[in-house]
Amino acid sequence: MTDDREALVAWSALAEPADAAAGWLVDALGPAEALAWVREVDADPVSATHALLERHDPRRVDALIRASEPWRARLAGANPALHRERAGAIGARVVARGDLEWPEVLDDLGQARPFVLWVRGGGVLADVFRGSIAIVGARSATAYGQHVASSFAGGVSDAGRAVISGGAYGIDAAAHRAALTTATPTVAVMAGGVDRLYPLGNQDLLERILDAGAVVSEVPPGFAPHRSRFLTRNRLIACASVTCVVEAAWRSGALSTARHAAELARPVGAVPGPVTSASSAGCHALVRDGIATLVTSAADLLELAGPIEASGIAAGPDSGGPGARGDADWADPRHRAAYDAVGARGSSIEDVARIAGLTIRDAAGALAALELSGRVGRSGSRWIRAAPHSQQKTDKTV
Amino acid sequence: MTDDREALVAWSALAEPADAAAGWLVDALGPAEALAWVREVDADPVSATHALLERHDPRRVDALIRASEPWRARLAGANPALHRERAGAIGARVVARGDLEWPEVLDDLGQARPFVLWVRGGGVLADVFRGSIAIVGARSATAYGQHVASSFAGGVSDAGRAVISGGAYGIDAAAHRAALTTATPTVAVMAGGVDRLYPLGNQDLLERILDAGAVVSEVPPGFAPHRSRFLTRNRLIACASVTCVVEAAWRSGALSTARHAAELARPVGAVPGPVTSASSAGCHALVRDGIATLVTSAADLLELAGPIEASGIAAGPDSGGPGARGDADWADPRHRAAYDAVGARGSSIEDVARIAGLTIRDAAGALAALELSGRVGRSGSRWIRAAPHSQQKTDKTV
Repeated sequence: MTDDREALVAWSALAEPADAAAGWLVDALGPAEALAWVREVDADPVSATHALLERHDPRRVDALIRASEPWRARLAGANPALHRERAGAIGARVVARGDLEWPEVLDDLGQARPFVLWVRGGGVLADVFRGSIAIVGARSATAYGQHVASSFAGGVSDAGRAVISGGAYGIDAAAHRAALTTATPTVAVMAGGVDRLYPLGNQDLLERILDAGAVVSEVPPGFAPHRSRFLTRNRLIACASVTCVVEAAWRSGALSTARHAAELARPVGAVPGPVTSASSAGCHALVRDGIATLVTSAADLLELAGPIEASGIAAGPDSGGPGARGDADWADPRHRAAYDAVGARGSSIEDVARIAGLTIRDAAGALAALELSGRVGRSGSRWIRAAPHSQQKTDKTV
Repeated sequence: MTDDREALVAWSALAEPADAAAGWLVDALGPAEALAWVREVDADPVSATHALLERHDPRRVDALIRASEPWRARLAGANPALHRERAGAIGARVVARGDLEWPEVLDDLGQARPFVLWVRGGGVLADVFRGSIAIVGARSATAYGQHVASSFAGGVSDAGRAVISGGAYGIDAAAHRAALTTATPTVAVMAGGVDRLYPLGNQDLLERILDAGAVVSEVPPGFAPHRSRFLTRNRLIACASVTCVVEAAWRSGALSTARHAAELARPVGAVPGPVTSASSAGCHALVRDGIATLVTSAADLLELAGPIEASGIAAGPDSGGPGARGDADWADPRHRAAYDAVGARGSSIEDVARIAGLTIRDAAGALAALELSGRVGRSGSRWIRAAPHSQQKTDKTV
């Protein structure tokens, strides 16, 4: 069996972002088995279909076989080692689902969450995303809009919140630039591979961002920033704890980010402007339609964001500091369920979540708590049960 | 007994606008009897108190006696004939509660409704107020604010909605001016008497308004525009079917108009502007606090206003056109109750409402319906039962 983490890398090259069929298949079978199935369909459709039919609704299998066509077309090129090599050449790394560094906020996308993120830049991505604030808006921004974006981004960055945006001209650039003047990292989410610092005119800016923050993408280096990838990219930006639209005309892409955020039950802020400015029309519509709250300052955004939630990975959902470790872990049935789900030869976080009936986020939190108490450990990207002596040793310290 | 309508004129000179004690007393005893009580208290407090105690809570009587001090201080000057004479000299007339021309929308203020309106200008006041739209805002408006006020006022006036405002500099003036370019009247509500076209710098504008619309006030000519009267004046403007705040700083008086309108369950619109403009801060706060809807065009205001309601006076709340007249009037128990409440020697609308247990508005609607069907008629400002023959004659036509 191919390693699940390697399979996730392959999947990031096989399926377009937010491909619902791929998301379902990978969650249902696990990344490696899902990848094996695609190879099987490509080689022998009848037998692959037969194997799946035993477990799943025939109509879904039919749909999957149709959906698999583009994946199969890319099978030859989806070589994880090659993608890694390309990434390494530009100093990029891969952060996959279930990795400690994985931004758990992305898991709220459910099956539409990315398989991996390709990352250029420093900082622990999970920490940067946690409590981050997305500031987005029109490329053709007015001087007013750029001024506001800069003021808001500076304010939230000063408060320690990473500014997430799309690295585009106009509002995005103004927000990134202001964030760069502070000590807090800023993240640009690209529609294409992180080897292409797009748009060209923002290359210098994006290079400064990857020095002081991160440039990330869910498609591997070499992938072009196609139009559809801008729209799917927006759902990643919308995973910030708050999304603020500074300026947006009626059909601005920033509105899609706002709608994604609203669907994720994240607070959305919209900045008002003159009713005579077409660049503010989209913001006004968001407020009128009840999608966004009217915001007039960085303080408003911080208020919408609320306190930064404790990390599900670093601290566990219910860990109350060092004294709460040990046997108290079992107080949360999710921890017990996650522990029981760890297989004899080790399990991916997806396996644990699936077997334990937990969300990826809860499984990650449970495993992290179990790791802290010495009950589980990690072998590469897989979780394993700790040897009895190490578990005992940890228990004694409690 | 002094005529109730004359007493209302006296009350407009005795009590400050929105005086809660005066409002209660006049509703409880009727205007004339309430006025008589004030005279009695002034002449012989013990006996006047005794008479009231028989019918009312002693604590309320105590409070009333204290509240009556300013009224008593003005008793000598409160001469309806004199106020009328002053009004007549400047071409002003008085419209009292229950008059056919009385804007029934003011009755939603309950006991805080004005006793009378002093009016300079043409048009049937009730018709002008019905479906009207208040456009208010900062005196120190920006060019942007004045542009928007002008555009919105022009738009709603073109749609046949009277623009109501306060005749002040800035937003108010811009709204009135734009309305004057259309065929629809505009109304300026003054804080002082209608003899003083205040502020002085808007005198020309206000003269044009009284030519093409109306300048009104609830205080008699000669009364000064005291600071407190600006605040109480705002509640009259807020009786428009929609109130729109175009620009307002944090402590702008326009915000009090907006709050009054919200308390009256009227839709409130607020125009967004640059977050960098202090003149828009109040508007943004209204939207954030859920008091106002963000509006960006005259069309938004017309949408908030909805269709103009049929007049309760001209048509009655449930009259379905000519065919619905006659016996069908009794289908509404309020009509029967109002008919029964009309006394042998005629009754004011306040009397009818009080005796029938109806609101002034419902009583007015019922009496209008009864008048259309010939069951009641008017003698001066009083309603009387129609002579049997006229009633029969009307019934035959159905």
